[in-house]
Amino acid sequence: MIQSRAAVCHSANQPMTMETVEVEGPKSGEVLIEIKATGVCHTDAVIFWGINANSPLPAILGHEGAGVVVEVGPDVETVRPGDHVVPLYGAECGTCRQCRSGRTNICWSTRKTRDLGVLLDGTARFRLNGQPIHHFMGTSTFSRYTVVPEVAVARIRSDLPLAQACLLGCGVTTGVGAAMHDVRPGDTVAVFGLGGVGVNIVQGARAAGAARIIGIDPNPMKRDLAARFGATDLIDPVPLGPRLVAAIIDMTDGGVDVSFESSGELGVMRQAFECTCVGWGTCVLLGVEPDGAEIGVRPVMVRYGRTLKGSYFGGVKGRSQLGRYADMLAAGTITVDGLVSHTLPIDAVNEAFELMRTGQSSRAVLLHA
Amino acid sequence: MIQSRAAVCHSANQPMTMETVEVEGPKSGEVLIEIKATGVCHTDAVIFWGINANSPLPAILGHEGAGVVVEVGPDVETVRPGDHVVPLYGAECGTCRQCRSGRTNICWSTRKTRDLGVLLDGTARFRLNGQPIHHFMGTSTFSRYTVVPEVAVARIRSDLPLAQACLLGCGVTTGVGAAMHDVRPGDTVAVFGLGGVGVNIVQGARAAGAARIIGIDPNPMKRDLAARFGATDLIDPVPLGPRLVAAIIDMTDGGVDVSFESSGELGVMRQAFECTCVGWGTCVLLGVEPDGAEIGVRPVMVRYGRTLKGSYFGGVKGRSQLGRYADMLAAGTITVDGLVSHTLPIDAVNEAFELMRTGQSSRAVLLHA
Repeated sequence: MIQSRAAVCHSANQPMTMETVEVEGPKSGEVLIEIKATGVCHTDAVIFWGINANSPLPAILGHEGAGVVVEVGPDVETVRPGDHVVPLYGAECGTCRQCRSGRTNICWSTRKTRDLGVLLDGTARFRLNGQPIHHFMGTSTFSRYTVVPEVAVARIRSDLPLAQACLLGCGVTTGVGAAMHDVRPGDTVAVFGLGGVGVNIVQGARAAGAARIIGIDPNPMKRDLAARFGATDLIDPVPLGPRLVAAIIDMTDGGVDVSFESSGELGVMRQAFECTCVGWGTCVLLGVEPDGAEIGVRPVMVRYGRTLKGSYFGGVKGRSQLGRYADMLAAGTITVDGLVSHTLPIDAVNEAFELMRTGQSSRAVLLHA
Repeated sequence: MIQSRAAVCHSANQPMTMETVEVEGPKSGEVLIEIKATGVCHTDAVIFWGINANSPLPAILGHEGAGVVVEVGPDVETVRPGDHVVPLYGAECGTCRQCRSGRTNICWSTRKTRDLGVLLDGTARFRLNGQPIHHFMGTSTFSRYTVVPEVAVARIRSDLPLAQACLLGCGVTTGVGAAMHDVRPGDTVAVFGLGGVGVNIVQGARAAGAARIIGIDPNPMKRDLAARFGATDLIDPVPLGPRLVAAIIDMTDGGVDVSFESSGELGVMRQAFECTCVGWGTCVLLGVEPDGAEIGVRPVMVRYGRTLKGSYFGGVKGRSQLGRYADMLAAGTITVDGLVSHTLPIDAVNEAFELMRTGQSSRAVLLHA
């Protein structure tokens, strides 16, 4: 049993409290990681703010972390103490229909326990005052020490600063990977939402050879950042209102080749779909919508050659492919320079979410002391 | 000016009347065709029955025909009198963004005039009592003589009976082509709606190597036909009601690889999407919904790897590729045996639609005298 400083989310819309929780050591097939740095992402916020109520509370949030392996349980073969690692919210069990298929990076067998806020054996490793605290997304990187299954650990090179590498746990990989999967050289691309994921879609689209990258966000600070990451056109959607889709169609001779949506807002998802071109226009959804929400799609737009698809963790298989993203980062093919607007101690976790909510931060990274 | 016997649709929900219309000869870039046979398809019915009011009336319906070139206008180079041809509702202008892309069979430049019920110069070639009668889908195969643009004519081999070849103008190509584009060997496939398009999806899926083909239709006659075309499992959706999706997911260990929807019913489209598997499940929409209708899609299902896409004329480029479908038909790779339940004279056009409406016909073919 280890003592760990952790931010605990007791219930939605209540400030998290810094606590000393007890962390049970790794069982068979599990890994104990000391998290050094963790990003603050919108997917944490939708739980914290009560937009999505599917994750059980109390819990330790955080899913974009990097750290060092402290201890491994029995039967762990692929990582050892001292390894630099990124915990993966998308595990790879290797044996379910999805993992065996070779057609997706989504492991379905590990999802059920993950979404229940426990590890694969159905129990949590965190306790506070004797009561179990739930895991979140199987990662819980807002705790200095966390336990994750070996199948949810990606080993990365050790020469990358962990305060940068943590961004590979979600935003960078999700954005860059999604763009690299769906953008072709010469494409015109629209990116709706220029937050931590959106600007990475922009740089991924640039790396994939897009000819034109249109960034759409009401926040001027985010638009400026997108320009630095490669956006060629920037649109403030507010003054255009309902004319936004028509404006994009006009400026692109009939619609974009590919659009990406990372805001999680239903109206924006619809705009992203409807601004794609006839014949092959593809809209990729990444943002997390309110629980149970739906978008309306006109089938005729689908029949005329538009495709609606999604991307999960950028289509990247974490265990086998995340190392390549670390290499791209080390080589400068992709960058995190300018991406992180605020680096704060973990104790400032509530402040970090407030900076996000008020649009003052593009990405905050929290450091464990 | 030629006299032509034609079925005229004066207004929705009123019986068509057989008339002798005047057909103006082909202008530059146009072709006069004597239609020998024409199928009766659901896309004609949605206009005739007033479900979709986007096509101007009065008009001569029919878009699944085959015939012989009678006369060509100036500057026509690719067909000549005597050629056996299929008029294409999907033209290929060769110069618009879509045609130049090589990524779609949907020509967008020719659509505007087509949907206005006129040829490319903005005028109609049909007159009745001196008043213009609209074209429909650019084909109007319910007239013995019809004029279409050269860019909307596919030449086919002359040894194929035209009463079979007409089905290449819509149902066979749409169904077989869609399946061949999206089914991989070994896939489990669901086909919702087993009409003239649906059974062709079934035989296309079989030709593409599907391991399991689940056909869903409330009509036992259609299910029987689908079995003959290769369906391995057949479901009557009526007794299952809202449990249909769960039943398909159960019998396929988590959902089908690919589903196709050809009924045009919104609830069925949604079922087709929701029964696909996590990771790579793909739903292909083919059916024509009521004008302006929308389907609800849960973005989380998209993010978890499901794709919603469409298919238009099976993704087949008519002018350059329809000949291959004619070859497949001649070689027996695909068949129309048993597909046509009723062969009637054109004068029985109203009876043919009534057979469709009451579920008594799988496909009717009308012969011009």
